[in-house]
Parts: sequence; C-alpha cells; structure tokens
Amino acid sequence: MEKRIGEFELIDRLSNRLNKLSSKKIIGIGDDCAVIPYSRTEYKLLTVDVQVENRHFLKTMAPADIGKRAVVVAVSDIAAMGGKPEYILVSLVLLSNTKSDYMDKIYDGISTACKIYGTDVIGGNISTGRQMIIDIFVIGRVLKKNLITRSGAKTGDKILVTGTLGDANLGRQILKGAKHDFNNVGSDYLISRFVNPTARVKVVEVMANTGYLTSMIDLSDGLSSDIGHICVSSHVGCLIYEDKLPVSPQAMNFIKIKKLSKTEIALNGGEDYELLFSVKPNYIDRLKALVKSKTNTVLTEIGEITEKSTGMKLIKKSGQKQKLIAKGWDHLKK
Amino acid sequence: MEKRIGEFELIDRLSNRLNKLSSKKIIGIGDDCAVIPYSRTEYKLLTVDVQVENRHFLKTMAPADIGKRAVVVAVSDIAAMGGKPEYILVSLVLLSNTKSDYMDKIYDGISTACKIYGTDVIGGNISTGRQMIIDIFVIGRVLKKNLITRSGAKTGDKILVTGTLGDANLGRQILKGAKHDFNNVGSDYLISRFVNPTARVKVVEVMANTGYLTSMIDLSDGLSSDIGHICVSSHVGCLIYEDKLPVSPQAMNFIKIKKLSKTEIALNGGEDYELLFSVKPNYIDRLKALVKSKTNTVLTEIGEITEKSTGMKLIKKSGQKQKLIAKGWDHLKK
Repeated sequence: MEKRIGEFELIDRLSNRLNKLSSKKIIGIGDDCAVIPYSRTEYKLLTVDVQVENRHFLKTMAPADIGKRAVVVAVSDIAAMGGKPEYILVSLVLLSNTKSDYMDKIYDGISTACKIYGTDVIGGNISTGRQMIIDIFVIGRVLKKNLITRSGAKTGDKILVTGTLGDANLGRQILKGAKHDFNNVGSDYLISRFVNPTARVKVVEVMANTGYLTSMIDLSDGLSSDIGHICVSSHVGCLIYEDKLPVSPQAMNFIKIKKLSKTEIALNGGEDYELLFSVKPNYIDRLKALVKSKTNTVLTEIGEITEKSTGMKLIKKSGQKQKLIAKGWDHLKK
Repeated sequence: MEKRIGEFELIDRLSNRLNKLSSKKIIGIGDDCAVIPYSRTEYKLLTVDVQVENRHFLKTMAPADIGKRAVVVAVSDIAAMGGKPEYILVSLVLLSNTKSDYMDKIYDGISTACKIYGTDVIGGNISTGRQMIIDIFVIGRVLKKNLITRSGAKTGDKILVTGTLGDANLGRQILKGAKHDFNNVGSDYLISRFVNPTARVKVVEVMANTGYLTSMIDLSDGLSSDIGHICVSSHVGCLIYEDKLPVSPQAMNFIKIKKLSKTEIALNGGEDYELLFSVKPNYIDRLKALVKSKTNTVLTEIGEITEKSTGMKLIKKSGQKQKLIAKGWDHLKK
C-alpha cells in the first residue's frame, strides 16, 4: 500500500535507488557530503541543503538572517567532513510579490556568511513560487588525510560534542510564540542560536589534521538521531551518559520555567549545528586543550562507542540503561 | 520605490551584488555555468536549475518525465559551455501528502536522464512544502581549449541553431488546455518536445573541439532573449533573418490552425533547449556537414553578428529591418 513516509525513510529509499547508479563517487548519499576525486592530496566535497519557509526558517526572521542561516547550514556539512567551503551556488524561490529590497537583504545575508567562511557565490538561479525556498549548494575541499566520515567510529572511541545542545530548538519555540511569556536575557541568546547559528569550520580546522577523530557529523536533526547515523554507518553501538549532556545556562533557565525535560531537549532538539564526533580514547585531553586554546570552544565527552550488539543506550543518572530512540527532527513528519 | 521586478532584472541585481564578492572564479554569474579551475587542461563547470511546479513543469506530467526533464534542463547548461556532465545533486521539495510510489517515479526519471548523459547522482536532499520543486545541481568538466562562453562572438560571425524553434512552447500550450481541439499526430510531437527535451551534449561533443564556435548559449528563454545574452556579453549586435528561422512541420501545422505568428513563436517560444551559437564565417559548411554526419542533427544559419552599434535587428521577409525585442520567457513575470 502507498503511504506517507518520513524524511529518513525517504532518504534511505533515495540512497538505495540512487546508489545502484553511482560508480564514480567515493562516498555518496548518506554522509554529510558527497566526496569526489580532485588532486593527489585533496578531495572535493559537495553538499546541498534546501531551506523551506516555515519549516526550516520562519518568515518572521529578518531576510538577512534567512540568507545567512541558509549558507551556514550548508557550510556546516562541509565542516562535518573535515573540510572548508570554497564555492556556493544559490537557488532562490521567492513569492511573486517579493519586494526587491527584501531580496537584496537576503543576498546581503548570504554575502555576510560568505565573508565569514571565506567562500564565493559563483552561481545563482531564481524563480517565484507559492512558498519561499533557499537551496544552497556548496563545494568544499579537504585534504585526503583529513577526511572524516560517519563510518570510522571504533569500539572504545569516546563521543564528544562542541558547545551546548538544545539551544536552537528552544530558540525556535520562543520565536514561534512563547516569547511574550519568557522575556529575559536568556531568550535572546536562545533565539540567536536558532536564527544565527555557527558552522564549526574553525574548530574543524584545528581538529581535522590531528588524526584523533574517527567519525563526525553535524547536529542538524538532534543528537538522538545523528548519533544513530554514525552508529549505522560505522556498524557500532553507543552509550550516551545523561548527566554529561552539555546544556547552556540560558536553556536550563527556560527548561525550568517551562517544566521541560533537560534530557529530552538535549537529545532531541535539532538545528544546533554543533559537531558530534568520535575520538580515539587516549587523545581526549590533548584534543580538548588544543581546541580550547585555539578556538576557545569547549568540547564535552558525552559517551562512548561500543560493539554493535550493545545497540544505542542512554545511561540514566541512576545508572540504569535505556534504549536511545531517535526522536530528532524528521522534517517530513513535523 | 519598491517594486516587483522580473527575473532578468533580478539576475542582473544578483550578478551585481554577488560579483563584487567573488574573486576565485573564472567566469561566474551571468553565463550558463560558473567555471572553476580544475587541472592543467580542464575546468569544472557548475550550474543549478530550479524547477517549480506549474511554472517550469506541469503537475499533469508523469512524475518520471518531471524528474527526467529537470536533469535535462540543468545538463543543457553544461552542454552550452562545451562540457559534459559528471555529477548531479538533487534537492526535492514534495507536498506532504506525496505517495512514496510517486517519489520513486521521479527518481526513476532522474536515473533515466543520468544514464543517457553518463552522469551520477551523488547527493540529495529532501523536504516538504506547499509546492513541488526540483532543484538540480550539475558539475561538469570541459577541456580548457573547448570552453565556449557567451562572450566570444565577433563581428562577421554567423549565428546558428540546432534543430527547430518554438516546438516546446506550443507543446506547453497544448498540454495546458488546447489538446482537445488539436488532436493529431503533430500534437504528440510538440508535447514531447516540451515534456521530454534533449540536452545537446552529443552535438557539443562534436562541435566543441573544432575551434569554429565563438560563443554559445542554450535556448531556455527563447531566441529573442537568449541572443540578447550573447550580444550583451560579447559587446556586439546581430541581424536575425526572419525567413531562416527553422520551424518544424508539426509546429507549422499548429501555427496555421491556431492562426499564430510563426515568427513570434520561433523568436519567443522558450524551453526548446536547442543550442544558439556563433561560428567563424568560413567554417559553416564544414561544421554543418560534420554535425550532420556524426549526430544527424541539422544546423541552421539564422543570422550574423554585427558591430554593437547595429543593435539587435530582425530582417523581415520584405527586407525591412526591425528592432528585435527580447520577449522570451521571463519566469518571474509570467
């Protein structure tokens, strides 16, 4: 029977259908980027990220923020494989009554992001439709020796994240309506984490050539989903420690006021665009110190890679083990 | 004052805004593809083409045709610069009630096109929205010596096209409603020219390394618009001979029945994805014979490149000169 299906299912279907076709690629659908040959020492990375109004971004956001965020989200995929963005192409679908001034501001936002990440927009395409859409295509480069995929995690590796988890999800919630009853300094921070995320290109620049990392993904769907992608690709299991999940003071404040579950937010809130990665166990302290000193970014160890037979488990504060279920943001079902 | 603006204006605006940013590219926004360095002998070509339901394709088309056509349209840009497609990335926005079977058929169409043009889909991205959209990114390659841009036309060059003009536009008209009162063999042909166009990759393979061509573009917006892009980029003018415009017997049949203007249809009907190009004057016969023998494709000489001061002129059957006005398909205004 025909049925409606969620995005992860669609992506699986798509991978199965299209991987059969593909011969030239090195790594294709199913990782953050496709990887193609370039030179003796380098690969090119290719990724595309489509952003749909009211699904990925909110129309209430400033147009410059909409443009900037679309670039950041796509560049984040390049960072997640150890690379740097080089070139960008933009497809834009605008409402037919869009004012030229509004469009200019979208491009200003795109330009701002390009400057931050050292990329160039080299192509574009524009049309009108019933809903605003920005689709960003990024070409990046990575030294072959620095390429980090989702599939290299090994039993015993430690699992780490950059920054804090769940901020963007709360920021989105606030933007979508809760703002009026949560009017303090923290809400601005959470909103900015949703509206104005950072692609962790600088952190990756420091980490990628250490050789310590064994796998990586960016946190777009949420930890519980994204760790699943690493586990499936690497044929491993994992333990995640509930009490180690890093949550910002601003998020904790909102979580308490709203009587939310900190663990739920940290595990399932997507769109933080932090990095989730596995590291060879003996190099954690060295890596943390290096990243802290070079980029002032905190890395948190939140779990470890296990045999596949372990499955994916959350270790509760009580010590109890519980199955970790992917509840991250499935764009098609939401 | 803010105002609504057409697509060509938007693209100009976009070019101006973004070209200021761009330093690394060789040729950027404003040609069919962006061109980036690759090896000693080759460039990479990059292009993106967004296809919006009811604007670029009709929802009444079979899903496999929708998928195939989206690839063809994007690959055509690669051909128009002398290149061959290598890799494809697909962004798909579907309605939330789309059945998996329908999606599979879209991908089957994409796969069919990939096989025809020898490309691979190496990445994809999917979401839902209020309107179906397919955005295709293509990466191609071209030998440096074979690169053909819009900007190389010289005074005295002849202007040629592949195939016939206006078929796709009539096919679209028939599909959109006139079918019931035009029920003969010709209508199927015209519809197929809209629904199932060909990217002229094989013809380009034969022509690109001859060194005879000085500029090229694919006919997406219509001859009157697309020759304008060449003239502007090459800083030249042109004469187009009304009586030389190649129109298919099927199109002539429809034009007569519907009392349309053959010249209007040939000049302004877009989406044929034929090639429009300028050729050094002494090589026309050799090129025609070569292309005919290798690909069985007819080339028609329709005009010549002039000094810029001539402007763009249509030479009527009567011998009278008339200003050639770009009335091709402006996607935003339609």
